Amino acid sequence: MKTSAIFYHAGCPVCVEAEQSVAQALDPARYEVEIVHLGEQAGRVAEAKSAGVKSVPALVLAGQSFHINFGAGIEALG
Amino acid sequence: MKTSAIFYHAGCPVCVEAEQSVAQALDPARYEVEIVHLGEQAGRVAEAKSAGVKSVPALVLAGQSFHINFGAGIEALG
Repeated sequence: MKTSAIFYHAGCPVCVEAEQSVAQALDPARYEVEIVHLGEQAGRVAEAKSAGVKSVPALVLAGQSFHINFGAGIEALG
Repeated sequence: MKTSAIFYHAGCPVCVEAEQSVAQALDPARYEVEIVHLGEQAGRVAEAKSAGVKSVPALVLAGQSFHINFGAGIEALG
């Protein structure tokens, strides 16, 4: 079974750059990569917060959150 | 030819966690991953800075820098 990798972003330029570089660089043989735009999927903000996401863009690998650069605080999203 | 992916760290716990998760998650078929411990390889701090690295851990993908979480400011390293 592949490991879950969820990339949360909010459409900001920093986010899109990180998505196109970091998220796309993950090994598709080992990771099931999902891209979540929190601006459009506000219903998933709570899930992101409970995974430890404090800002976007963020990558949650196997439940562990990694913040990449800094685009926007998650508190601004809902 | 594979794309260069250099993961800079300084041995801090935040760095090691990011190395073991994010750096190891990259697709080895497309990326030539190099791990650089700036605490032990101080001669490479200048190279990291010129790639735009401002803190470690950081991942430089094809010359573009991405800061992951925040371990230590690069100015503390030399």
